[in-house]
Amino acid sequence: MLQRHARRGGVRLSRAALVGGVETGGTRVRCLVGAGPDDVRAETTVPTTTPAETLGRVVEFFRAHAGRIAAVGAACFGPIDLDRGSPTFGRITTTPKPGWGGADVVGALRTLSVPVAFDTDVNGAALGEYRWGAGRGVDPFVYVTVGTGVGGGAIVGGRPVHGLVHPEMGHVPIARDAGDTFAGACPYHGGCLEGLASGVALRERWGAAPETLPAEHDAWRLQARYLALGVAVIAAVLSPSRIVLGGGVMRAPGLLARVRAETARALAGYVRAPDLVPPALGERAGVLGAIALGQALLTEHGYNSVR
Amino acid sequence: MLQRHARRGGVRLSRAALVGGVETGGTRVRCLVGAGPDDVRAETTVPTTTPAETLGRVVEFFRAHAGRIAAVGAACFGPIDLDRGSPTFGRITTTPKPGWGGADVVGALRTLSVPVAFDTDVNGAALGEYRWGAGRGVDPFVYVTVGTGVGGGAIVGGRPVHGLVHPEMGHVPIARDAGDTFAGACPYHGGCLEGLASGVALRERWGAAPETLPAEHDAWRLQARYLALGVAVIAAVLSPSRIVLGGGVMRAPGLLARVRAETARALAGYVRAPDLVPPALGERAGVLGAIALGQALLTEHGYNSVR
Repeated sequence: MLQRHARRGGVRLSRAALVGGVETGGTRVRCLVGAGPDDVRAETTVPTTTPAETLGRVVEFFRAHAGRIAAVGAACFGPIDLDRGSPTFGRITTTPKPGWGGADVVGALRTLSVPVAFDTDVNGAALGEYRWGAGRGVDPFVYVTVGTGVGGGAIVGGRPVHGLVHPEMGHVPIARDAGDTFAGACPYHGGCLEGLASGVALRERWGAAPETLPAEHDAWRLQARYLALGVAVIAAVLSPSRIVLGGGVMRAPGLLARVRAETARALAGYVRAPDLVPPALGERAGVLGAIALGQALLTEHGYNSVR
Repeated sequence: MLQRHARRGGVRLSRAALVGGVETGGTRVRCLVGAGPDDVRAETTVPTTTPAETLGRVVEFFRAHAGRIAAVGAACFGPIDLDRGSPTFGRITTTPKPGWGGADVVGALRTLSVPVAFDTDVNGAALGEYRWGAGRGVDPFVYVTVGTGVGGGAIVGGRPVHGLVHPEMGHVPIARDAGDTFAGACPYHGGCLEGLASGVALRERWGAAPETLPAEHDAWRLQARYLALGVAVIAAVLSPSRIVLGGGVMRAPGLLARVRAETARALAGYVRAPDLVPPALGERAGVLGAIALGQALLTEHGYNSVR
């Protein structure tokens, strides 16, 4: 891979070109200049306050490295507009986060005068893990994050999947357990995967922060069951050999092992269960995925980009 | 597309090269020599009896066209072994169809001394519709067939998706309607999509052949509801802008319109529903997909093939 090159605008750029990566999260924004996990030249974190202040500081950070970086990749919380034909391409759309509805992430980064790649935070994390982490060589590959919400990103043929919108794996309909009367935390669907198994759902259902629920609490049996149904759905539609399960909720002791056991139960031997593994890149998966998005822009066509 | 060419073994082959396509179904096998729906040179149908007799007649048909065809594509009922590294690659595996377990479909076709592409019947139909039918320009694109069983094929980046196994969309877990006490027709999962909404499930649940159930029968309300949940699952995982719903059960009058309405209800406005449309190629989708599989073998790498 590192030996592949492409010609773009007359400049010979290596696959491992230095680029800027930015992961825009709900509480903090990670910025990195580098070419991968083993070649990080600079890194910073900026708190997510207002779009003007936050994106201003991001651009300022990258401007200090102007001339070294050949592109910027952005992996952004959403929903975001990924439709290149849309007048609001590159913006956050309808987020409940105050002030961020309509924030023009790509517009801010374009002021750096390098090509900008743009995708969701989860697709970024999926691409990062696919390129350098637990998803290497896995095609199709799926990354699911279970945190405040539940999201997923799919990499097929080396590229994040985009369709009508970015896939919203958190919103798969899920069969409730008999006797589960919790209304669900999703305002749209109630009992979708996010509605039943997100960090918010856990907190609302049990009236306690998930990290305070002991390992023997019934919450974790049910949590493992619902996540396993989500895994079974993904296995049925995409059949990945491996799925990374990340996000804060997945750090609960023993949860991953219970999800594996419940997945085997849900699939009932009809197909082999995908390997379920934790992320290998930890909290850097998203920003490293943004680096990969930026690099892909320099060597391939077809990613979301503006020039 | 028709103007794209590739060089293979020193012979210049057009994208629209004449190839053989074979769709191996449970009751009949369709064979076609051609380059697409507008260029069919020969066509035949062979009843599915024993593997020796049926595959013998298929090979005999194509042998009459030897010298004209540059490859053969096979779209085959399953489960089948698509793992090129496996000693049973190219065979049907554990089908309940008497005599067909272990049948060596690719082995039979290799006697024609041309490259052989191999995929599932549903991936074939998906590829056929993607190439020439209702899925043109749709990426990702999903084809779902609702007949005796329920199956699905996904095309991403122009290629059928393969993972651990071929995707088994029929086996997605589905949330039952309150009050639905039918055990389900799937021996593995009971209430998966296939277990609740296949032709077999309809027959077992209502004690009548689906085509005899009148349009106002409650069967169709429930059927539309379950198929809509399957569509919602696919929308959440892959976000296709269009899904083709084919197969015998979908020919029930008014069913497609009811599935559209139930899908809108299931998605609840969170994301736009994919367009749900009937197949454009009718019963030829699979065999034309087999033609596309064979053609892809001549112009691209990465499809399942032996040489």
